[in-house]
Amino acid sequence: MIYVLRMGHRIKRDERLTTHVCLAARAFGADGVILSGERDEKLLEGIRKVSEKWGGNFAVRYEEDWKKVIKGFEGDRIHLTMYGERLDRVISAVKKSRKDKLIVVGAGKVPRDVYNLVGWNVSVGNQPHSEVSALAVFLHEWFGGKELLRGFKGAWLRITPCKRGKSVVSCRK
Amino acid sequence: MIYVLRMGHRIKRDERLTTHVCLAARAFGADGVILSGERDEKLLEGIRKVSEKWGGNFAVRYEEDWKKVIKGFEGDRIHLTMYGERLDRVISAVKKSRKDKLIVVGAGKVPRDVYNLVGWNVSVGNQPHSEVSALAVFLHEWFGGKELLRGFKGAWLRITPCKRGKSVVSCRK
Repeated sequence: MIYVLRMGHRIKRDERLTTHVCLAARAFGADGVILSGERDEKLLEGIRKVSEKWGGNFAVRYEEDWKKVIKGFEGDRIHLTMYGERLDRVISAVKKSRKDKLIVVGAGKVPRDVYNLVGWNVSVGNQPHSEVSALAVFLHEWFGGKELLRGFKGAWLRITPCKRGKSVVSCRK
Repeated sequence: MIYVLRMGHRIKRDERLTTHVCLAARAFGADGVILSGERDEKLLEGIRKVSEKWGGNFAVRYEEDWKKVIKGFEGDRIHLTMYGERLDRVISAVKKSRKDKLIVVGAGKVPRDVYNLVGWNVSVGNQPHSEVSALAVFLHEWFGGKELLRGFKGAWLRITPCKRGKSVVSCRK
């Protein structure tokens, strides 16, 4: 199982980015997101609605105490940061471990503690970009691209890939 | 050369996401972003400052007429959309062409015209996620991961990857 911990969410400032973090987590094969920072039930509800429509068992929940989440997690704890070790150098070691994964991504500045509470600080490139792209590329490397081909059970909506336009199959009961 | 066309930018709503699109474009090896939608000089200036600090020749500019940009582009035009053809099925064909690339990503709903003006409509997975993750994973596939290792000339700031904490070398003149 792979969970994402989205830290330091600020309702007004991060609403859309956190939504994109959650959607990317789901689309690239994570099992769920734990949101920390400001409690944002509307955002969580939005993600649940997307999951209901598009299928799968993606879970989202809020936890005020991010330290408890990291410390209490039984498995590998990985913090994505531009300051961390190079992805290409650690990905095979990360893959070798068969334990569950907690992937930590921040919004704004991440408290220094996080760097010490995790087992790996991993950089998806050492340039500034986005927690959305870092998470997606990390998961894409982790799953080797297979995550993009998997089905989402119980979906009301499915897309049939096509050259032009949109082909959506609706199977709402 | 690879350029990204970010369409339909709305200053208030998309400020941070468009910034992340630009930063991801830069970090994952694109040469520049053309911004369309609402004119947002502050955002462009912010990206220019990042590029100055972190190096490289990443270019950003505004164009009101996105149709002119797409039609006038001499090279391959690729629109990233969840409705498009599967990335894994088209990436080798896209790679074979040695022409310049224009990668189109929307904010909000993309006008139907776009689907017909481009040569490829490509889906990075057929699930809803983010233009930031779609762009990053597309470029990551395109460059085969080598984009994360390239240097950025003239940088004032460079990161030395490390296991814990932050190691930043400042070489500002």
